[in-house]
This record gives sequence, C-alpha cells and structure tokens, in this order.
Amino acid sequence: MSADFQERLRGIVGAGRVLTAAEDLAPFCTDWRGRYSGSARCVVLPGSTEEVAAVVRACAEAGVAIVPQGGNTGLCGGATPTGGEVVIVLTRLNRIRAVDPDNNSITVEAGCTLHAVQEAAREADRLFPLSLAAEGSATIGGNLSTNAGGVQVLRYGNARELTLGLEVVLADGSVWNGLRGLRKDNTGYDLKHLFIGAEGTLGLITAATLKLFPRPRVQATAWAAVPDPAAAVALLGRLRDAAGDNVTAFEIVGRPALGLVLKHIPNARDPLSGMPAWQLLIELSGMRAELPVNLEAALEAAAEAGLVTDAVVARSEAQTAALWALRENVSEAQKIEGVSIKHDIAVPVSRIAEFIVRADDALAARFPGVRIVCFGHIGDGNLHYNQSKADAESNAEFIARTGAVNRVVHDLVHELGGSISAEHGLGQLKREEVLRYKSATEMEMMRVVKRALDPRGLMNPGKLL
Amino acid sequence: MSADFQERLRGIVGAGRVLTAAEDLAPFCTDWRGRYSGSARCVVLPGSTEEVAAVVRACAEAGVAIVPQGGNTGLCGGATPTGGEVVIVLTRLNRIRAVDPDNNSITVEAGCTLHAVQEAAREADRLFPLSLAAEGSATIGGNLSTNAGGVQVLRYGNARELTLGLEVVLADGSVWNGLRGLRKDNTGYDLKHLFIGAEGTLGLITAATLKLFPRPRVQATAWAAVPDPAAAVALLGRLRDAAGDNVTAFEIVGRPALGLVLKHIPNARDPLSGMPAWQLLIELSGMRAELPVNLEAALEAAAEAGLVTDAVVARSEAQTAALWALRENVSEAQKIEGVSIKHDIAVPVSRIAEFIVRADDALAARFPGVRIVCFGHIGDGNLHYNQSKADAESNAEFIARTGAVNRVVHDLVHELGGSISAEHGLGQLKREEVLRYKSATEMEMMRVVKRALDPRGLMNPGKLL
Repeated sequence: MSADFQERLRGIVGAGRVLTAAEDLAPFCTDWRGRYSGSARCVVLPGSTEEVAAVVRACAEAGVAIVPQGGNTGLCGGATPTGGEVVIVLTRLNRIRAVDPDNNSITVEAGCTLHAVQEAAREADRLFPLSLAAEGSATIGGNLSTNAGGVQVLRYGNARELTLGLEVVLADGSVWNGLRGLRKDNTGYDLKHLFIGAEGTLGLITAATLKLFPRPRVQATAWAAVPDPAAAVALLGRLRDAAGDNVTAFEIVGRPALGLVLKHIPNARDPLSGMPAWQLLIELSGMRAELPVNLEAALEAAAEAGLVTDAVVARSEAQTAALWALRENVSEAQKIEGVSIKHDIAVPVSRIAEFIVRADDALAARFPGVRIVCFGHIGDGNLHYNQSKADAESNAEFIARTGAVNRVVHDLVHELGGSISAEHGLGQLKREEVLRYKSATEMEMMRVVKRALDPRGLMNPGKLL
Repeated sequence: MSADFQERLRGIVGAGRVLTAAEDLAPFCTDWRGRYSGSARCVVLPGSTEEVAAVVRACAEAGVAIVPQGGNTGLCGGATPTGGEVVIVLTRLNRIRAVDPDNNSITVEAGCTLHAVQEAAREADRLFPLSLAAEGSATIGGNLSTNAGGVQVLRYGNARELTLGLEVVLADGSVWNGLRGLRKDNTGYDLKHLFIGAEGTLGLITAATLKLFPRPRVQATAWAAVPDPAAAVALLGRLRDAAGDNVTAFEIVGRPALGLVLKHIPNARDPLSGMPAWQLLIELSGMRAELPVNLEAALEAAAEAGLVTDAVVARSEAQTAALWALRENVSEAQKIEGVSIKHDIAVPVSRIAEFIVRADDALAARFPGVRIVCFGHIGDGNLHYNQSKADAESNAEFIARTGAVNRVVHDLVHELGGSISAEHGLGQLKREEVLRYKSATEMEMMRVVKRALDPRGLMNPGKLL
C-alpha cells in the first residue's frame, strides 16, 4: 500500500522528487532553531500547482496527512512533521508569474523567496515592502501562511495587508483560483483571509497576487539612545506627527541584545558610546529629494525635550547597512549564544513601556540573574522578549523552567490585552499555551472553521489547533 | 407562540422597543433606493450587546430568521427583510467605548454613525479616514458588514483594512469578544475577516476596534479635466511617483454625472468651462505646512504633457467643500432624476481605461441613446457605472432590459479580471448574478463557511448567498 502510494507520488512529480532515504529527509524534518524534529513518510517536491493538487488528492485518497514547507525558517515548528506525514516542499514553485506596475501588483508562486519577490518589484521600479531577516531563504508562501511581519509593518502592514489574492490547493486537492489584482471586491466572503496565517492547516497556498508600492527615492536612517521605552514611544509619536507615514521603521534594541550581536557577529561595531540601555533604529522614507522632516534636526529637538540621549545619523549606504545589520543579526547572535526562552509578544503601543517595566521586574524577582534579550518592532507594540542565563549550566536549569517563565510573561501580556504570538504564529510551540488565553468561544469558532475546510484533519495536523 | 415570542423580546429590550404595527415597521422594510421591500415579523431595537445576544438566542430557539439593520443606507437590499424575519436595528448601540490616541485606535459600538466615529477621532486629534456620502446616517456596523469603501480607499484602504478587532453576536446568541487593539496578532485564524463584508449572514457585529491615523495638517484639492480616462490613470501615476501616499483622493466624474448634479442639486456650479467629458477631483494631504508637491504646479506640468486640459485648485475651505459636494451628490442627483441600472464594478487599475472605452461602445451599439453615468474611485479601479434613458417612457422600457445590460457590463468586467461588486456588496441585488462569475469551487467554499457558522441558516437569509 505505502509502496503503491509512493509510486503514485513518483508518477506525479517524477521519481527523483519523492525523497525517502533518511539522509535525504533529515533537512526537512528539523526546524531552523533545532527545537523540533519529526519523522516524515516522504518528502515530495512538486513543480507546479497542478502537481501540488495531484499530490494532495493522492494523500487525501490514502488518508495520509500533509505538512507544507517552504524555506523552513519558521520559529514555531509549524513546518516540521510530527510523525509519518508527507512533507510537500514548495520551493520548486518559484516563478514570478506577472508584474503589473500600473496596477501596483505582482503575482508570484509560493516557493519564491521573499528576496526574489523584492527584486522582481525593484526591477519594475516598485517596492514590495515585506522585509525580515530570513528573507533570503524564507518563501513567500511561508510568509503568507504565517502572516509574517518584519521591520516595515509600521508603515505597510503585515503579509496579510499586502495580499490582494491567493491560489490555494484545498484539502480535497481541488484548486481555488482567487488570484485577483483588485483593490476592491465585495462579492461575498473574503476567503483569502482564512488561509493567510493559517499555517497550512486549511489549505496549501501555491501562488499570490501582492501589493506593490512606489519605491522611496530617499531614506534617512539613524541609531538613537533613549532613556527608557516610554521615551521611545513618545519619540515615535513626535516623528509621526511631523512626518506621518514617512516613518517606515522604528525598532528597539535593548543593551543585552546589542551585546550579543557585538559578541558573535563579525565586524559588528557599537554605533554609540557607553552602551546605553535602550537604543533605536529609525528609518524615514520619502518620494522626493527632501524628506518632510530632517531626521537629525528632529532627533536634536527630541534630545532637548529629554527623549533622546545620543544619536547618530547614517552618512552613507555602508553606514545604513551597518546599522540595519546590528538589528537584523540579533536572532542569529542569540542562536550562536545558545538556547533561550523566546517570546514574540504584542500589546497596544500605549502599553508597551508598561509591559517592559513590569515584565522585567517580575522576571528579575522570580529568576535572579536572568538575562533579558528584548528587541523588536516597538512601533507595532511587538517585542521579541527572550530570556536566558549567561552561564551554560545554570541556563540549562533555567530552560527547564520555561513553563514558569512563560506564565509570568504571557499572563502579563494577556492582562494588557495583548497577543502571545505577534508575528511568528502558533505552530507546535504555542498551540497548547494559547488555550490558556483565548476564550472557549473563539477556540470553538476556529475548530468549526477547521472542520469545515479540512473535515478529515489531514492538513498540517498538530499545528496551530 | 408568536405572541409568546414577542413577549419574550419585549422582556429583553422593553415593550416600546419591539415594533409590530405596520406603520412602525414600514421605514425598516424598504431600502434607501426604494428598490426592495419585504415584510418583517417585528422590528427590535436592543440597547446593548447583551440585549442583542438575548434577542438572537430567542430567535434561534424559536427558529426565527434575523435581519440586522443599521442606518438603512445600503444599495443592494442587504438590510431589507424578505418575509417574516425579525429586524434587529442596532442604532441604539451608539457609544464610543474607548479612544486610545497613543495606540491610534478607537473602540465603538455598531450603531454609531460613521460621522460620529470621525468626530470622536477628530476630538482626539486623530483621523478615522473612512468617508462616504451617506456617512451622516450610515452606521459603522453596516460599513463593516459591507466592507464599505468610499473616497479615501486609495490611501487608507476599505473598512476591512481599518479594523483591528470585532465584537460579534454569533448565530447561537453567544458573544465573541475579539476587540483587540493590536497591530500584530498571529494566534490562529483571523476570524474578524469572516464577518467583515459578510452582510450579517454569519453573525451580528456589535462593536469594533478601529485604526486611527495622524490628522493631516494641510490639504490641497483640485478639479481637473483630462482628455480621457487613460490620461487620468497616467496622471495618478505621476502624482504618486511625486507624492506617494500624499495622494489621498482621486475621483473621476463623467460629463453626464456632473450634468445631473448641476441639474438637480441646489447651488451646484460647474467648476470648469465647456463641460469637458472627463473631470477629476484630486486631493493631496500632508502632515507639514508644505506638501511634497505643489498641486497646481504638478497639474501645469501634466498639462504640458497633454494629460490635463483644464484645472482649478481650491483657494478656500468653501471652494474645497463645493468641489467635494459635486462629487458626493452624484448618487443623490441620480435618485432625483429617476431609476437607473447601477453597476459597482472594479477592475485592475491598469485595465480601467480599457473597460470604459469597451463598455461605452458596446452599450451604445446595443442600446442606442443610452445615457451612461460613470463616476467614482478610478484610483482604486472602481467605477459606479450606471445606465438610463433620458426620456421617462423609454427609460421604463430600458430598465426592463436590466438583465441584458448587466450581461454586457459584467461579462466585460469578468473578462478583465474584475469584480461585479466592488464596494456595495451582493445583498439581494447580485446574489444570483454572482453565480455566473464565481467558480463552483469558490461558491462551495462560501457555502461551507456559511453552514459552519450558521448551520440553521437564520442569519440574514436570502442575502449574499
């Protein structure tokens, strides 16, 4: 039976594209962080939507579960098999199907890397603004399935807000062509939103039509120190009142986060002296030669108001790239440093400073010597708020108490009306944790939707729900 | 039984708030355009989410269907009963629950008029950008249930893009509290998108948390004539390349549309001489004293390039208001003029000029003497494209051929990858028509979702699906 099944899969995608040997399966069966591993029945590499649909039909008829995978850069184990599934790897669906500059839209296949989509937009003198550290290997299909965020959400929104239409292979192997390049379409339920952020549990995204934007002609980038996170939020308000949506990035990096980058990333240099406790990466973008505000002058005025203690504005593309590298290498530096307890939280922007103060205090009191690596998208109310111990041995003990740490952090997030997964999704990492915080009504609505679209529960089981 | 049922409703909302007399029901049983009328079992006016939930529970237990209604300004009969339903009117749920300027969010009840929400935002020195002609009486609940568009979608998106969270009474009378003021939340399926644009067929929206924006400090408004719609699209591209998202409105008004306004609306004055065939209302908004481009200079440059034949820039708030009144009174003027065949279509912006040329030609050939009132949101690829005959008697004959007119217009929209309902929804008007153009797969997905969330089909039956 299983031999026949794999024979059928080989007939669809070609013999060389159904992997079964342990060493061939290995790279697809462990997540990027090395936190999750599972066994797969096989790995299939289809090359077209039709092949994906045929593979899903074969799995549905055989009652075999499916795990979709893109660049395997997820942080919650959402693309890692849990035992005996068929892993459908979409990286061969990597065509740019169409670019329509006059409509500011692009249609791409799910296996295109985010970087490839950005480049195709640039070639049409347009911007595709989704941007995150893993963009060189992360696929757009994975970005959409996890509703990826990143460093320009402040201005352009999450992956969801950038999506005009989808092509999806449904649980029965039928294909929904919802690839529409329309700004307005009120002809019934907006089904694309069911699949964006669903982590492959309702269907497999095979292509998408995405929004493009005019490409900024000028940018200003600065690195600034602030006395505390409250000052950072106040500074964001000032900049937005002055420059509106010309504020395109506003990222915070706490001292321990920057310290790890300086320790582990070659050529990383401290942009300010004295290692201030809280530092910001600020970017303004505009369409004209001149931005609506001079960033340096705005930061000087903010300094007079006590909101900024030190700042440097990039004078060259090299300096700009160096500042961005400090921010984007935090996750890599953490990975090199060792295991940590990660939280990807969001609260209303108006509560973010309160969150940091209260969470830091509660963790320091409960876990003496804890190192808190706090950084991220403070302009969106979204922080990566991670804990570890500096010494490897005590860190092992500490990691063993992950549940207790989560309780402190997530209970406070919940109290402040926040989210325990702002941009990484639930995957395997948080599917149990979320049950503590979502209402029974909401969980039941999610199960009802899941049963409706995947009645046999074969789409990425054990993830999200 | 029915008497007991109404007694139960009176017990929930109070005796005076269950209307049963024919003269009391009448205003709630006919739509704004006077196109649809139906009988209602009664009209109920609850004053809180709890009362709405109790009314829905009572209806569910009695197996009685429900029609939600806000300001009754819809254009597709989506809020009009079809026979014997309970009409739940939400206008008494009109509290502004919370304003959070630092989070750029506001939480309002469904019965607030759009204008009241705009005013509450203004009082907090923020902008709620959703704007449409009926805003004085349309409720935000209706705006969300129809995913309203309007004149600032170009910059700020539809009602859907402006929504952070919802509170919804479900088909069984339970309440889902999804009122979150978060920019990022990836903890499972994004359920709010099921209810936005669902026209009350999946649940009743009782409150929403909405996005706010910095209030523009300066605006420039112009009325310009262009040789044809293709020039209008080219002009939009030029303005966006120069000013990016400072372009906040870009509306087209065809000669017959402006003619009706000048004919029927008191004090309406023609802003340009010679009644050019295609005229535009253009608005730029910015945060600083100076806009990134001088609109007058930009239009002069466009004139030299042959894209603009005449233009006037408003010199005062009074002139600005007068220009906007010309655009916003088109629907009212049409209503006064008499019955017309209305189309609310969208195509990719790159195809809109082709649509107008081909549709005009096809209709003129097939229906000699047809008057085409074409106006709307050309920057979104969305036109209100309406037909009538000038003479009342031949108009009656013409209206009788609505199906044939729809076929010409909607077949072309479909060929160009467009939508037959860009911003008004399906309601009763287009629920049959849409079956011609949506795939069987998509229709079945919609039915599956409907059955999952409203298994007994009591939520606004006969609408959308």
